[in-house]
Amino acid sequence: MTILTGANRRAEQSISPEEGRIVMHCADRPGVVAAVSTFLADAGANIIESDQTTTDPDGGPIFLRVVFRVADLAARIDELREEFAIRVVEPFAVEEWRITQAAVGKRVAVMVSKYDHCLMELLWRWRRGELPVNIGLVISNHPDLGPEVRSFGLPFVHIPVTKDNKESAENEQIRLLKDNFDVVVMARYMQILSNRFLREVGCPVINIHHSFLPAFIGASPYLQAHSRGVKLIGATAHYATEDLDEGPIIEQDVARVNHDDNVAALQRRGADIERAVFLRAVQWHCEDRVLRRGNTTVVFN
Amino acid sequence: MTILTGANRRAEQSISPEEGRIVMHCADRPGVVAAVSTFLADAGANIIESDQTTTDPDGGPIFLRVVFRVADLAARIDELREEFAIRVVEPFAVEEWRITQAAVGKRVAVMVSKYDHCLMELLWRWRRGELPVNIGLVISNHPDLGPEVRSFGLPFVHIPVTKDNKESAENEQIRLLKDNFDVVVMARYMQILSNRFLREVGCPVINIHHSFLPAFIGASPYLQAHSRGVKLIGATAHYATEDLDEGPIIEQDVARVNHDDNVAALQRRGADIERAVFLRAVQWHCEDRVLRRGNTTVVFN
Amino acid sequence: MTILTGANRRAEQSISPEEGRIVMHCADRPGVVAAVSTFLADAGANIIESDQTTTDPDGGPIFLRVVFRVADLAARIDELREEFAIRVVEPFAVEEWRITQAAVGKRVAVMVSKYDHCLMELLWRWRRGELPVNIGLVISNHPDLGPEVRSFGLPFVHIPVTKDNKESAENEQIRLLKDNFDVVVMARYMQILSNRFLREVGCPVINIHHSFLPAFIGASPYLQAHSRGVKLIGATAHYATEDLDEGPIIEQDVARVNHDDNVAALQRRGADIERAVFLRAVQWHCEDRVLRRGNTTVVFN
Amino acid sequence: MTILTGANRRAEQSISPEEGRIVMHCADRPGVVAAVSTFLADAGANIIESDQTTTDPDGGPIFLRVVFRVADLAARIDELREEFAIRVVEPFAVEEWRITQAAVGKRVAVMVSKYDHCLMELLWRWRRGELPVNIGLVISNHPDLGPEVRSFGLPFVHIPVTKDNKESAENEQIRLLKDNFDVVVMARYMQILSNRFLREVGCPVINIHHSFLPAFIGASPYLQAHSRGVKLIGATAHYATEDLDEGPIIEQDVARVNHDDNVAALQRRGADIERAVFLRAVQWHCEDRVLRRGNTTVVFN
Repeated sequence: MTILTGANRRAEQSISPEEGRIVMHCADRPGVVAAVSTFLADAGANIIESDQTTTDPDGGPIFLRVVFRVADLAARIDELREEFAIRVVEPFAVEEWRITQAAVGKRVAVMVSKYDHCLMELLWRWRRGELPVNIGLVISNHPDLGPEVRSFGLPFVHIPVTKDNKESAENEQIRLLKDNFDVVVMARYMQILSNRFLREVGCPVINIHHSFLPAFIGASPYLQAHSRGVKLIGATAHYATEDLDEGPIIEQDVARVNHDDNVAALQRRGADIERAVFLRAVQWHCEDRVLRRGNTTVVFN
Repeated sequence: MTILTGANRRAEQSISPEEGRIVMHCADRPGVVAAVSTFLADAGANIIESDQTTTDPDGGPIFLRVVFRVADLAARIDELREEFAIRVVEPFAVEEWRITQAAVGKRVAVMVSKYDHCLMELLWRWRRGELPVNIGLVISNHPDLGPEVRSFGLPFVHIPVTKDNKESAENEQIRLLKDNFDVVVMARYMQILSNRFLREVGCPVINIHHSFLPAFIGASPYLQAHSRGVKLIGATAHYATEDLDEGPIIEQDVARVNHDDNVAALQRRGADIERAVFLRAVQWHCEDRVLRRGNTTVVFN
Repeated sequence: MTILTGANRRAEQSISPEEGRIVMHCADRPGVVAAVSTFLADAGANIIESDQTTTDPDGGPIFLRVVFRVADLAARIDELREEFAIRVVEPFAVEEWRITQAAVGKRVAVMVSKYDHCLMELLWRWRRGELPVNIGLVISNHPDLGPEVRSFGLPFVHIPVTKDNKESAENEQIRLLKDNFDVVVMARYMQILSNRFLREVGCPVINIHHSFLPAFIGASPYLQAHSRGVKLIGATAHYATEDLDEGPIIEQDVARVNHDDNVAALQRRGADIERAVFLRAVQWHCEDRVLRRGNTTVVFN
Repeated sequence: MTILTGANRRAEQSISPEEGRIVMHCADRPGVVAAVSTFLADAGANIIESDQTTTDPDGGPIFLRVVFRVADLAARIDELREEFAIRVVEPFAVEEWRITQAAVGKRVAVMVSKYDHCLMELLWRWRRGELPVNIGLVISNHPDLGPEVRSFGLPFVHIPVTKDNKESAENEQIRLLKDNFDVVVMARYMQILSNRFLREVGCPVINIHHSFLPAFIGASPYLQAHSRGVKLIGATAHYATEDLDEGPIIEQDVARVNHDDNVAALQRRGADIERAVFLRAVQWHCEDRVLRRGNTTVVFN
């Protein structure tokens, strides 16, 4: 059975220009939900979907996501942000928040090496209108996927990376990415990004790892899985952080394998899981469904 | 993989006596969420979890479930209901609503025939403290399960049903159930309840059907499934209504079967699905997660 | 979790030209397995995989699939078939059997209308070498998908079908298909095939139906599913027969949906299930994994 | 959806006294399957189910499981074993093999500490006739579960284990287990067994670990999982070996969790997975479906 993807079902259809989202988390204080909803009511906005949770009902932090509709959202969004800052953010000491226009897709850049399955899943869904994002650039350390990418009408930039040019290669990547994109997604990009890159790129970076983390950290996870004789293989999408394979997990899934599967078969089978997990993580992130706190995430799906 | 049961994770632990729930649905009107959350803030209540959705973002009805904490909930609940009626129900023409104490388990009566798997799942979870309800009575048209039920410290009443005594048998059932229980659950009760029973029993009735409705409506669904050569069998929990096997669906699930499974094997395999689906439906209902509207449900899980 | 696809893991890699398959079913008679395996041993063949089952251990029919390797298979296959007929088929009254070369992909023709998701899944997997078949032709009653199909280097033939020209359209289809293909797959072909077509086309026809048959037979199953408020939607791949939506089921699967999903969302979500179920059915059929008997199938996966 | 348990569907019904099983693995040699099936045909046995596979089609070892029926199996089984040794085991250098009577349930001893969920699953299925084994003894290092176990009519022996008496405690365990049981199953037994115990107990030992091995090896896996923010939790059943948590894996499964689940909720949710995985592993082992080779297993299910 296909696991519920939790994707925004409405996002799958055409998204109303009147639709906005508030995402926030803060320490729990009585009245914060009333403040948010009163703010929206006073703005003439109609709440059409909301989710709220806490990791600890005894005074733990609260996480909130509200989808609303209001006339002239695009024209009024700066004013709404200012008003929200005054009426909610300051009095309730909100730690992290954003107000976004649902109809304005996040600007996405893709980094990839030679494996094409995660990239193709993304491009294929995007072209069909099933992924509400704006893909704007594909960067690769290999030239191989250029023709395929360009056939989707997308720019493809080949930036070779060797052990000698890593710093200058990252400089070029950062120059292309910084301020231009809302999220960078690594669709099986087989180079380790430096901490400097992660700091300077200026937006979240999503990675897909081809194992059920924390099992089989590091290289050749399918080979490791085969040696260990596991009965399920998995994939993990997470935010890239300074600690390799240790960032906050966004999504994971597994597939059943058996004794007939050699390492090549595990790779083949795993590729389908990687694609599905990667797609969900990118989609959920771009629909403002993922709230990050420390090394974990809250995902409203 | 086990599908997310959606059970109230907090309910799995001891439930705070301060925890209350508001469940409601109404026509969409701007300000209704603000009214509910302001009502709670003014009452000194703290919202710890909330879910809201609509079946149509363009003016469709809204469905809301809010979990809150407030001091002295038990003492103040009547006052809260009165206040809520004035400040929310009347101005927003709320069609259906309730405010409940989470720590007060729903009063559950079970009707059963001879198959024991759904009943045992319920009693076993309940005894382990995993099902936050108060089971108070088991009624059966057969005497067989009496000793097993009584070993759980529960009253078991045998009310034989024949084609001649159906009306008087239902009278006796209604006399035991009416006003005494919040929900009646049919754990494979193999008699069809009359419309009069459903009207007079005074509370919702949950049924488990041993097929993936609407496939294999009626008798012997596993035999039907075997003849048809299906590759999955299922079970469906729904509210009983006047139209047999047609009531609002609460939960469904399936299991994979294959050519090796004869009818007896399908029954055996199906019994596990029935148990799981039935348990989830009863739990979700009793945690105020199921909102019924016409012939469908909204389930916040 | 992704359900085990049961695909031939070895087929996912390059298939040895020495690899052959015997598939058969017959009434149960002691010694039939010994006869098959001795036949192979005498031929110098090595059995590398075998599956046998019966639908009834008390004398029911037996179903057998054996994968073997033997030198010079291509040169010797006719001789092997003749020998097998003498040593196994005749003495044991085998009802249905075939000996095939695994490395020779089945010749597949696709029929499609306007929905492209099942077709694209097939072509995409095929181009990546993940589907061990020879796709040779796509026929459609609409011209829309022509450019896409031709970009894969495949011939696309547009045969319009109206209520007036159905017979001549089928004549043209049959002329193209008969004797040229081993299987015809309907990748959401929205016309009902006549019994004459099924008789004359000369090979099995696989269809994908967008519901969990036998639920929601006929038109607009997602609309039906939405009205009924089901919690899972499904898809069914089956052999087309004279009785519409009633042919032997090859594979089924489901996806979880909820109250947020409108009909368009069910269609979108269902399309992913249709693709997966259709792909598995085509792959299993082409790997000689599906044995048909009456209105049911035995699938060795 | 419930994953196919792969249980012997026929075993779920009453098992014929004529039903036997051959399980073996050996280096691949042409003719071995013919030898086995001819041996059975000559013995007047009828093969009703068979599975064969290899981990490498180019000369890898072959694994075989055959279910047959023959008159007077109980009286003839020693003779069949002798004959099999001469006609198959010796000429083909079979490394490991057994011939068993399906109707003779394996003799099972359970070791348990305080958690009762895996034990109860076993006892409950066993009492219902769904688990074709003979449970004969429960050993615990705590007295707590004694009354529950004895209510099933089973002997319960309390053998306290401290850091001072571990050797003598194991001596007592071995005295009770050795030669008396075909398999020992650790239903959340929270003591580490010594290598000496594993060597001397004289039969396989199955353990259930409450994580998706190799993730979260060692103590408190649910606490580890919570800290890591995983989206799935799992359980692993494996044969106990000298290397803790490193033995050959028999079965694994996972359940989806989310941000609402605290450590206690993960434990609760995990318990259901542990039960299911443990039950399948015990059942498959006892149905002669698991072939062990090095640190991996072949499971015919």
